Amino acid sequence: MLDKVKGIKDLKKLSIPELTELSQDVRNYILSVVSQNGGHLASNLGVVELSVALEYVFDTRKDRLVWDVGHQSYTHKILTGRKESFATLRQRNGLSGFPKRSESICDPYDTGHSSTSIAAALGFAKARDLQGEQHKVIAVIGDGSMTGGQAFEALNLTAELDTDILVILNDNQLSISANVGGLSHYLNRIRASSAYTGSKQAVRRFLSRIPFLGKAMIRIIEAIKDSLRYILVNGVVFTELGFQYFGPVDGHDIKNLIEILRQVKERKGPVILHVLTQKGKGYKPAVDNATAFHGIAAFDRETGRTADPDQEAPSYTDVFSSTLLELAREDERILAVTAAMADGTGLERFRQAYPHRFFDIGIAEQTAVSYSTALALSGFRPVVAIYSSFLQRAFDQMIQDTALQNAPLLFAIDRNGLVGEDGPTHHGVFALSYLNQMPNMRILLPRDEHMLRHMMRLAFRHDEGPVALLYPKGKGKGKAAFGINASGAYKLPQWGKGQLLRKGFHVLIIAAGPLIYEGLQAAYQLQEEGVSVAVFDPCFLKPIDAKGIWNAAENCGLTLIAEENVAAGGLGWTVTQQLQLAGYRGRIDCLSVPDRFIPQGSQGELRKELGLDAQGMIRVIRSYCDKAAMGRENAG
Amino acid sequence: MLDKVKGIKDLKKLSIPELTELSQDVRNYILSVVSQNGGHLASNLGVVELSVALEYVFDTRKDRLVWDVGHQSYTHKILTGRKESFATLRQRNGLSGFPKRSESICDPYDTGHSSTSIAAALGFAKARDLQGEQHKVIAVIGDGSMTGGQAFEALNLTAELDTDILVILNDNQLSISANVGGLSHYLNRIRASSAYTGSKQAVRRFLSRIPFLGKAMIRIIEAIKDSLRYILVNGVVFTELGFQYFGPVDGHDIKNLIEILRQVKERKGPVILHVLTQKGKGYKPAVDNATAFHGIAAFDRETGRTADPDQEAPSYTDVFSSTLLELAREDERILAVTAAMADGTGLERFRQAYPHRFFDIGIAEQTAVSYSTALALSGFRPVVAIYSSFLQRAFDQMIQDTALQNAPLLFAIDRNGLVGEDGPTHHGVFALSYLNQMPNMRILLPRDEHMLRHMMRLAFRHDEGPVALLYPKGKGKGKAAFGINASGAYKLPQWGKGQLLRKGFHVLIIAAGPLIYEGLQAAYQLQEEGVSVAVFDPCFLKPIDAKGIWNAAENCGLTLIAEENVAAGGLGWTVTQQLQLAGYRGRIDCLSVPDRFIPQGSQGELRKELGLDAQGMIRVIRSYCDKAAMGRENAG
Repeated sequence: MLDKVKGIKDLKKLSIPELTELSQDVRNYILSVVSQNGGHLASNLGVVELSVALEYVFDTRKDRLVWDVGHQSYTHKILTGRKESFATLRQRNGLSGFPKRSESICDPYDTGHSSTSIAAALGFAKARDLQGEQHKVIAVIGDGSMTGGQAFEALNLTAELDTDILVILNDNQLSISANVGGLSHYLNRIRASSAYTGSKQAVRRFLSRIPFLGKAMIRIIEAIKDSLRYILVNGVVFTELGFQYFGPVDGHDIKNLIEILRQVKERKGPVILHVLTQKGKGYKPAVDNATAFHGIAAFDRETGRTADPDQEAPSYTDVFSSTLLELAREDERILAVTAAMADGTGLERFRQAYPHRFFDIGIAEQTAVSYSTALALSGFRPVVAIYSSFLQRAFDQMIQDTALQNAPLLFAIDRNGLVGEDGPTHHGVFALSYLNQMPNMRILLPRDEHMLRHMMRLAFRHDEGPVALLYPKGKGKGKAAFGINASGAYKLPQWGKGQLLRKGFHVLIIAAGPLIYEGLQAAYQLQEEGVSVAVFDPCFLKPIDAKGIWNAAENCGLTLIAEENVAAGGLGWTVTQQLQLAGYRGRIDCLSVPDRFIPQGSQGELRKELGLDAQGMIRVIRSYCDKAAMGRENAG
Repeated sequence: MLDKVKGIKDLKKLSIPELTELSQDVRNYILSVVSQNGGHLASNLGVVELSVALEYVFDTRKDRLVWDVGHQSYTHKILTGRKESFATLRQRNGLSGFPKRSESICDPYDTGHSSTSIAAALGFAKARDLQGEQHKVIAVIGDGSMTGGQAFEALNLTAELDTDILVILNDNQLSISANVGGLSHYLNRIRASSAYTGSKQAVRRFLSRIPFLGKAMIRIIEAIKDSLRYILVNGVVFTELGFQYFGPVDGHDIKNLIEILRQVKERKGPVILHVLTQKGKGYKPAVDNATAFHGIAAFDRETGRTADPDQEAPSYTDVFSSTLLELAREDERILAVTAAMADGTGLERFRQAYPHRFFDIGIAEQTAVSYSTALALSGFRPVVAIYSSFLQRAFDQMIQDTALQNAPLLFAIDRNGLVGEDGPTHHGVFALSYLNQMPNMRILLPRDEHMLRHMMRLAFRHDEGPVALLYPKGKGKGKAAFGINASGAYKLPQWGKGQLLRKGFHVLIIAAGPLIYEGLQAAYQLQEEGVSVAVFDPCFLKPIDAKGIWNAAENCGLTLIAEENVAAGGLGWTVTQQLQLAGYRGRIDCLSVPDRFIPQGSQGELRKELGLDAQGMIRVIRSYCDKAAMGRENAG
């Protein structure tokens, strides 16, 4: 059936059984591409029928459909002219895993982080009203995203704006982990109580038959009648906020979905439609383990197993996870806090070992930070584990709550640097800069998983003020780590001190985190060309080891700084400033993430393209050497 | 009565009439200090009785009382050992206008930005549980602060944490401006419907008297009974989120307040107490105009009038306000968006002139940015006017929504730089750095109100991508502006170009915004000492006019950069980087806000202390000249 549907026009001609067949085809297609390319699986399988019904009832070429977070937009993409290119999902120059205005007019708003959809939809709705246009505006938001405060801000604002908007609450009882909070319990009760709906008429009949009512009682009965809508019509919280509430409806019954979407399409004012879906629907491994199949690497479709991971080195996340368990055994003050990402951040093991010392705050990074700050001020040592780009949400709280009060909490910032296939919304290329601004913040950037382990110990020994520990997505160095030799010796840095890993007198490379290994490789390669390259790992980025850097740089004609972070406010600028102040007379070059949004691609592809690898460093150094040689010739 | 109360112990011995008298004394004292020092008046007058009752029922030396935003904590401060020092409110080295851990053990958490209190209180409550302690934890939050998403995140989280916490909803129907949103309408309905409460018993009696009920009806009646709590017990939205709801109660009736606080103090689990207060209570000018008396400069207590403002130059806010009106007349695409600050940002006039093109989003900066981005993508030119430090809340949305989609919206960032008496939570000293990181963002920093006016025009002509326009608290330059001479000529910069305001060959001063005037003064003064100082105004900070800077700096031995922003990622680092790349061989010095939180004080005091004025620049330049002279002598 999918072969027959070239575009939305074809879709609109299909019968219900044909739409059901189409849904099955789409589901198969998604499974086949994601099992090869990796991607978000469970959430996409859960909204196939909902997406088909939305495309059928609405016209997303002119209506505005905003997918919250956007990782569940695969069916939408397949049905809106991107069927063929879907095979290139998440690949370099291929289709994005998120809505992109640049891909299609059917994507009105780029999303990637949670809970923005209702605010954006309100903007579109109000713009439409002001322009006197007629199209519909729809936001589809998961119950997990509803735990993000911005979703509530926008729900609250809706009552004020007096506009037509449809919010579809895609309720699958899971965000990435299981959902938390009062709203989630509330939705559970709605689901449980929907049996009441049928008896609404019966109650009305009953009340109308009570034969005699004293005048004083009439008022009370009126109140009771009125109150029926609270119990018999679900969604009182939403109706109190000014929405018309419909649901809950089965999100996998296309016929039903189309019927109710047609109804709500004609309603004036704000409407919320509560749709129940199942994450992973139609693929048993994903239903059984929706969390593992949230975002997943390529896997075997028959077994649901991902390719055997490389056993040589553990991932940074794994090392964080196991080290935290060790430390928590020794230090009862250690608590762990996540924002709906217990699995991704590696805190799941901590949750199991220490359920009472673990807190999942929901997709609510702001609250995670303020909450943890109060824990820290009470004598605990909370670890707040949030991905680098998601932590941007708590920028203000990190300054105003944590740094201002100099609270001793550890920010475990995973997925720092380029993350690969998730693309621009997920690259953690701002953290070093936004942390650098914050007074009292210490920034630590381990070059490999061994140092991550060590730095976690150092961080917990540091009792004064917040510490930010940044580490990337992917594997550590294993036995290839610097200093891991036959004797197993690994030279660990002192608190606040960098390490000169290699001496040299022509050029100094300073690199942050695992990039230091590219520096070592460049140095090794250039040695054969007669260029002597020193390599310095600052280890601590704030405050930075200015003396160590000066000692390493003093006699080098070029200092090259490399970082997987934007230039503004990052390591390159920090070192430039320090060297300049100290009176350095050599040349300074920086290799940073350029001042534009970096697209998707594998980490390796992106690093190569941006010159953030050994070859990129070698190019800069050769160019410098050539110029220096030319200078000498000219002088001679 | 206030004279008799030395501390909380004395307070606890008072009778109700004495507490009422004490409240009146406190109110008078607040009025007398704020009318002299300036400060937050209306909100503090509104919570005098509530504060007295809280101190009476709880023991804030061990119980944790978190004031949301914290500008309403004056009574709390006066009653907890800071009666005398209250006379130094908001002054340099005096008492802060916000809760400060450093001032008293009765202040458990520093606040300053909205909507963090419940999250922090939850942290304290959970810490208490884990430590096996018994004290109470209370958050006091206004209905305005409830529009901030973080407040909802924390309310939502409460159900999950299973802890004892009291949230006091201080409902005065105003945030800074009038409140917006569904929650606010909902609270209005609660206020209106509280008459129902009394009839609860009557309904129960009525139902129990219906003589005969068929078995099928029993279930329905059970449902009705159950549903009574929805209509008869107020606060269903809060109860659905897992709170026990009490109220609304009169927040100025001390006897009643003490009674209900004693009741809720003993409740287990999360409790919300809805208290109705009146902003400005007891001082007619503040009641009549709570918005004007929100944060106010010194004023005449009899008339309620502030000292006649200096008529010579308008404030930046005024110029923004009037220019926007002009531009909006010419360009219908211009819309204005505020986050509960129509007055403070100068948008009130726009609201009145163009009510349909004006949007107050509530204290919800995140939503303001996403919403405005969608407006911009729909063809409008929204202006988002938010104070510099408050905009930190929308850091992620500015990157992910606005910059990523290159949406043409104008961020009008008032209160940039040091703001004075409000202190560290309100200084706008991070904006230049956090904006500098964002791809596609243009940053404009006018040196005076004339250029602000001009730059607003330039910004609206620039159709591609977001523009950030930063300007400080306070007055412009009026007729003292550079280039405003007899002929009235004022040389305006071209888009993207800086301006060399003064030539010189020894030293170059580059300063951002109004600081350029300090540079001009320093240059003038140093001329008499035989030092030739050039002064360059970059005007556009991103992208920066690298060529203009190079041309100005090339032949100067010292380049001094000054900015009211932290060093990391600011103008100093930007210029250093540029000059270094271009091969500059002179010395570079930066005068920035140091890497610590800057306390309160007048803008002038703070600038002087930090050397961010002409004298500070002169000191640096003289020191350079002395060294240079010494170098020449040594060489000679």
